[in-house]
Amino acid sequence: MRLIVPLQGVVQGRGGLFVGSLIPCCLFYFLQLYLKRRRSPPPPDSDSTELPRTSSRSSLFTRGNSIGRVRVSSRAAPLAKPPDSPYYIGLDRVKTDPYHRVTNRDGIIQLGLAESTLCFDLLQRWMSENLMESLMMQSDVDGGFDVSSIAMYQPFEGLLEVRVAFADFMSRIMGGNVSFDPSNMVITAGGTPAVEVLAFCLADHGNAFLIPSPYYPGFDRDIKFRTGVELIPVHCRSSDNFTVTVSALEQALSQARKRGSKVSGILFSNPSNPVGNILSRETLHAILSFAQEKNIHVISDEIFAGSVYGDKEFVSMAEVAASGDFDKSRVHIIYGLSKDLSLPGFRTGVIYSFHEDVVSAAKKLMRFCSMPVPVQRILISLLSDTRFIEEYMAAHRQRIRDKHFLFVEGLKQLGIPCAESGGGLYCWVDMSSLLTSYSEKGELELFEKLLSVAKINATPGTACYCIEPGWFRCCFTALADEDIPVIMERIKLLAESSTS
Amino acid sequence: MRLIVPLQGVVQGRGGLFVGSLIPCCLFYFLQLYLKRRRSPPPPDSDSTELPRTSSRSSLFTRGNSIGRVRVSSRAAPLAKPPDSPYYIGLDRVKTDPYHRVTNRDGIIQLGLAESTLCFDLLQRWMSENLMESLMMQSDVDGGFDVSSIAMYQPFEGLLEVRVAFADFMSRIMGGNVSFDPSNMVITAGGTPAVEVLAFCLADHGNAFLIPSPYYPGFDRDIKFRTGVELIPVHCRSSDNFTVTVSALEQALSQARKRGSKVSGILFSNPSNPVGNILSRETLHAILSFAQEKNIHVISDEIFAGSVYGDKEFVSMAEVAASGDFDKSRVHIIYGLSKDLSLPGFRTGVIYSFHEDVVSAAKKLMRFCSMPVPVQRILISLLSDTRFIEEYMAAHRQRIRDKHFLFVEGLKQLGIPCAESGGGLYCWVDMSSLLTSYSEKGELELFEKLLSVAKINATPGTACYCIEPGWFRCCFTALADEDIPVIMERIKLLAESSTS
Repeated sequence: MRLIVPLQGVVQGRGGLFVGSLIPCCLFYFLQLYLKRRRSPPPPDSDSTELPRTSSRSSLFTRGNSIGRVRVSSRAAPLAKPPDSPYYIGLDRVKTDPYHRVTNRDGIIQLGLAESTLCFDLLQRWMSENLMESLMMQSDVDGGFDVSSIAMYQPFEGLLEVRVAFADFMSRIMGGNVSFDPSNMVITAGGTPAVEVLAFCLADHGNAFLIPSPYYPGFDRDIKFRTGVELIPVHCRSSDNFTVTVSALEQALSQARKRGSKVSGILFSNPSNPVGNILSRETLHAILSFAQEKNIHVISDEIFAGSVYGDKEFVSMAEVAASGDFDKSRVHIIYGLSKDLSLPGFRTGVIYSFHEDVVSAAKKLMRFCSMPVPVQRILISLLSDTRFIEEYMAAHRQRIRDKHFLFVEGLKQLGIPCAESGGGLYCWVDMSSLLTSYSEKGELELFEKLLSVAKINATPGTACYCIEPGWFRCCFTALADEDIPVIMERIKLLAESSTS
Repeated sequence: MRLIVPLQGVVQGRGGLFVGSLIPCCLFYFLQLYLKRRRSPPPPDSDSTELPRTSSRSSLFTRGNSIGRVRVSSRAAPLAKPPDSPYYIGLDRVKTDPYHRVTNRDGIIQLGLAESTLCFDLLQRWMSENLMESLMMQSDVDGGFDVSSIAMYQPFEGLLEVRVAFADFMSRIMGGNVSFDPSNMVITAGGTPAVEVLAFCLADHGNAFLIPSPYYPGFDRDIKFRTGVELIPVHCRSSDNFTVTVSALEQALSQARKRGSKVSGILFSNPSNPVGNILSRETLHAILSFAQEKNIHVISDEIFAGSVYGDKEFVSMAEVAASGDFDKSRVHIIYGLSKDLSLPGFRTGVIYSFHEDVVSAAKKLMRFCSMPVPVQRILISLLSDTRFIEEYMAAHRQRIRDKHFLFVEGLKQLGIPCAESGGGLYCWVDMSSLLTSYSEKGELELFEKLLSVAKINATPGTACYCIEPGWFRCCFTALADEDIPVIMERIKLLAESSTS
């Protein structure tokens, strides 16, 4: 009894003697289980506890005491399976029967992928004129092409010249009120590794980021796949045009802590993906104040910063961080060229961090995702060609605005509204009027009908953790003008068949 | 007492009543601690348990109840620190004062990095003539450059054309007796991510690979940094020319299992790095038989397969796996172009696996390290230019052989022997005669003297987990012929000053 007394002291007021007896009972039970497991003799092949039964095929090949086919790691096994997010299911379905306005007019129209072909004419001209020169750039004063300038090992975080070019380019597209220091910058082979590397550096396995939802469905893979960092959605509502508030953050953080989660930071996209709205300077201030108060990190994904076409000014979190009111070391920016320069094939991402340890660690992690030097050479020329960049950016914004207008107008005529937006390559469409039931199930049924009947792949809100059913993200910047009436006609037919 | 009885039953024979009393005591103690922690009011910022004391600088910026500067994750913190392996220390030191035969004759000579400039004249010619055409490749029948062929999203695992080109190229350089199926192949942005992705797919965090040592010191970072997979060296000896034996594998596996390690596979380089020897067909058979018996994976790093210059034939593990005697799904090959085509700047790696789940999972993980499309376009042209490839590979092998001869001869004249080797861009040098003490300490002192006094960066065996002191890996394929006497002179002076 003497052993149980101090325990009773601790738990008094929580059940007293009862808890004091129940807990040791349970502990003994699990201890016995544990000891029993350890004492039983190991199987002949103790490394193969996870192996399946020997199949007839593999037994043909096995020898000795092998008991079956070798298996992949338990963390890789789920990745080998088909995807379960409607986002990826939709993308995969398009591949089986892609629409083409000449060769496959009955194919599935892709509205699921945020890519732009709007300024390919400008890119085509620049590449035709400058690609060779950019790659053959003189690396020595004596002139002439030197293959070692592209073939040899270079710093994994990117050549200084490419980081200088990015610093200047980013400052330019973000309104010129913010400057970037190339030494705080790391260049990666894509925006996706930029997100992953930051997650690895800011949070441990099992820790979490708060993330205003609806959010970009790719973040689940980008962050959870390998780093084991959890994402806790902070639900935003249509009544606020899906803009996050500090009170929602406060509530999500407090609930997460009650559940025992360690929250390491807040991650958000600005312009937001999938809604396309732009966070105001005041909202950014409020988020950073909140993060500072809670002593957590802020990760601002600004990969659509140059794809802003409305009247609202884009403000980088880097600008707010540098204002002097904050400890800026908690601020980290993600950028890349897949969206603003329409170059996803170039696999170009940027990590910009005010925290020197993050920069140091990220540099070392670049061994896993550094950008090939030939691509760096092309980008040094491209980003430094300020005349081209200005022409391109003006056209890019204007053409998104025009396409956005056409697309949203088309939907409006069908009685389908969109959320207010001013950035991004997509709009956030309220198709709740087409739902047969106002629920996640109803939304997924509509998603399936859009795919199979209307042959349109749009990303349903549930893939983005939206709590209001019926919202879909529709990417419109890889469409030709003449595709838009085709889409509207298909939606119209679907709507009519649903109501009839 | 009734509660303790069943426990005693379990632990009897392991200390009986004593353990039966001690264990519950400890459990109660930790339970009390746990409950106490939960009951005490949380600190104002309960996420900041790991925070350092507030510094005067950060307090300037903090507001509210924040108690200090935000920290990086505990897994990233060690990466932010300077390296502790002599391999990386040496590489970093060279950057501070690199030798140049014209502009810095007193600088540090790099023998630490396995890169080759031996055939840059051939690469230079090919690039000058074909780079533009390869990038501007016609993507449509109507001809002409289409920017979408390099700018848009493509399958993360690599275009089919690049995988076909790699399959043909790899078969060619590996002697033509083995064929590769492009659908089992994944193209990555470098050999390093290829290693990491395979490790992630084959072993869980905390599991281990057996690895014959001495081994390539970069594997520690490539594998341990993020995947958490351990490497268990299987020590090989100079008396066997550092070739692994099945009995050594058997012993290492048995010891590892006794320690509670779960061994998921065997990883090795062939040609070996750092020794440069080539594994015979019989050894490969024996390793694969062993792996099959133990039901573990085999990862064969064949990144130097085309850099073989001796009389010994190179045999790919893929060839042995396909022989029909084995369940080949346990076999995985790593390849890349950094060594055989001297293109480390192109960041080109290959995973070839016979296991469909590994291929599926690796394809999804390519979102973190996919190869930019422009680089894929260049490689499709380069690898398909079989006339150039044959000319290049013949020259590459001949020139390594010649340089190897010069370098090894130079050392021989100083009385310094090398291990027998037939592949790789380095030799494995026995400098034990220069040690002041025959120990790891003595070897590291020599490493430091080579760096500071002789101004030569060679990788000491201890960085490669070699158990015999005094061995150094010296990479010689980025040297000009006239550098070799400079190196020999420097070593000679060092040897004389040590003995005088």
